[in-house]
Amino acid sequence: MNRFEIESASARIDAGLGSFIRQTPLWKLPGGVLGVNGAEVWLKLEHLQVGGSFKARGMLNRLLAHPMPASGVIVASGGNAGIATAAAARALGVACEVFVPEVSPEAKRARLRDLGARVVVTGASYAEAFAACLARQRETGALLTHAYDQPEVVAGAGTLAREIEAQGRAVPDTVLVSVGGGGLIGGIAAWFEQRARVVALEPEGAPTLYRAREAGHPVDVTVGGIAADSLGARRIGDIAWGLTQQHVKDALLLSDDAIGAAQHWLWKEMKLAVEPAAALGLAALQTGAYRARADEKVVLILCGANMDPSRLA
Amino acid sequence: MNRFEIESASARIDAGLGSFIRQTPLWKLPGGVLGVNGAEVWLKLEHLQVGGSFKARGMLNRLLAHPMPASGVIVASGGNAGIATAAAARALGVACEVFVPEVSPEAKRARLRDLGARVVVTGASYAEAFAACLARQRETGALLTHAYDQPEVVAGAGTLAREIEAQGRAVPDTVLVSVGGGGLIGGIAAWFEQRARVVALEPEGAPTLYRAREAGHPVDVTVGGIAADSLGARRIGDIAWGLTQQHVKDALLLSDDAIGAAQHWLWKEMKLAVEPAAALGLAALQTGAYRARADEKVVLILCGANMDPSRLA
Repeated sequence: MNRFEIESASARIDAGLGSFIRQTPLWKLPGGVLGVNGAEVWLKLEHLQVGGSFKARGMLNRLLAHPMPASGVIVASGGNAGIATAAAARALGVACEVFVPEVSPEAKRARLRDLGARVVVTGASYAEAFAACLARQRETGALLTHAYDQPEVVAGAGTLAREIEAQGRAVPDTVLVSVGGGGLIGGIAAWFEQRARVVALEPEGAPTLYRAREAGHPVDVTVGGIAADSLGARRIGDIAWGLTQQHVKDALLLSDDAIGAAQHWLWKEMKLAVEPAAALGLAALQTGAYRARADEKVVLILCGANMDPSRLA
Repeated sequence: MNRFEIESASARIDAGLGSFIRQTPLWKLPGGVLGVNGAEVWLKLEHLQVGGSFKARGMLNRLLAHPMPASGVIVASGGNAGIATAAAARALGVACEVFVPEVSPEAKRARLRDLGARVVVTGASYAEAFAACLARQRETGALLTHAYDQPEVVAGAGTLAREIEAQGRAVPDTVLVSVGGGGLIGGIAAWFEQRARVVALEPEGAPTLYRAREAGHPVDVTVGGIAADSLGARRIGDIAWGLTQQHVKDALLLSDDAIGAAQHWLWKEMKLAVEPAAALGLAALQTGAYRARADEKVVLILCGANMDPSRLA
């Protein structure tokens, strides 16, 4: 995975269905506005992307990169990856099956049905739903999308970094990136390589990359906590593992309290309604877990907004 | 009121406390993304302004334009004007008294206290609170801010139009503006004059400009409905009346159903959490109350986000 694959993904998306992906705003602010000393903060408002998260980029890229079977696409995810796959499939006019475990909330299933997907509820856990999804895929031959560990999905996420550089008219010094399975940080790191410092941020309750770095290789972790909904992958993806080993020096953990406080701060002071996963960057700056220099240009990626807004009240 | 006064306001704000006012994002989108045929829509994300509405521009301009009395500033408003005045006063380090009627919700009073204001709860109605505020002002000599009918307040709002033109690198064809007391549309019309078509939008339940145009002069109206919280002025301001008579040809009314539907659409499809008053522009486009040409550049001003987010769930 490298910059050329991201350039290809960008060209494929533009040519295939450019109007589906939104060029989300990049908002440059003095750090003081965000309660941070010094630094120029670039807020990438990617939570305004179609489907409410960055995932639409990777899913559309995956769907466009392959011949489309008559059976359409298939995915196991009740979260942002499922929404993004269903939205991209609808935009392309192809069928979509989404497998979710029995524990998934009805509101999420309804959202997927609204997007035209056939929702299959099966299995006590995500792992069981995923196994059923794979069995179904072998039966139908549908195109499988994975939430983070497919090259087209990572390259699609990388188009976000390319867009930041173009909008900012400069390479930022630092990019703070929330990590679950690693699809986003893989794409960001592949684009910037070592031209910017890419910093991995994880909740203490879902430390897939942090634990992998301790072990020297990807390992399963138990996940939970405030951001588990979108960052709760059990293991860092192989593609992200390779890319972060190559390009990412820093991996930091943040407490649920710090993440929740930053999420509420973004609503109260900025009127940005985002999911917990999108608040890790601000949490890192506001707690001092990451300390920026006075002249540092720091990108925060607000990666998603799929949550119940009454949580902000 | 004219473009020169708006240029002066802009320069005064930059020189006086430029870091307080945020240059909010202007987001250009194909109309299709917003469920509208044709047209290029420019979304001005002014609900991300400090204090959660455009009002901060006018209030700061008013505070900077006058010598500051030792008694500080005073205002009668439990809504966006009160928040903006209190926030600007705090940023300047001056005292602030806010008069609100007994019917105002405790959440709003708490917000004002959080901003360092002294909150005075008095009177059964806004009119009574306003009368008490004026009596107190005569006693203390504090600088009075009015929610919409002061030249500095209107000129401050006009800096929003100036910013749109600069960010858009062009004059748009059309600007759709929500109207309460008219501070915003006065400033927008004064900036664009007849270079763009400025369209006034009001809820059926709060038709201050619409009724004034029927009567040929400003008249009191009874107000209510979904957006009364921020658009519920009883009478169009004199400054806005003069400016709209000069520059604004179209004044449209929208139903609460259309406004509420557009507000929920902005959350569900765009993840933009805004107050009802900010949704009138999209409501006008989505209902066809305003029909844009295929090649028309239409600005929607998302003017505020001060609401209970659980209303979006």
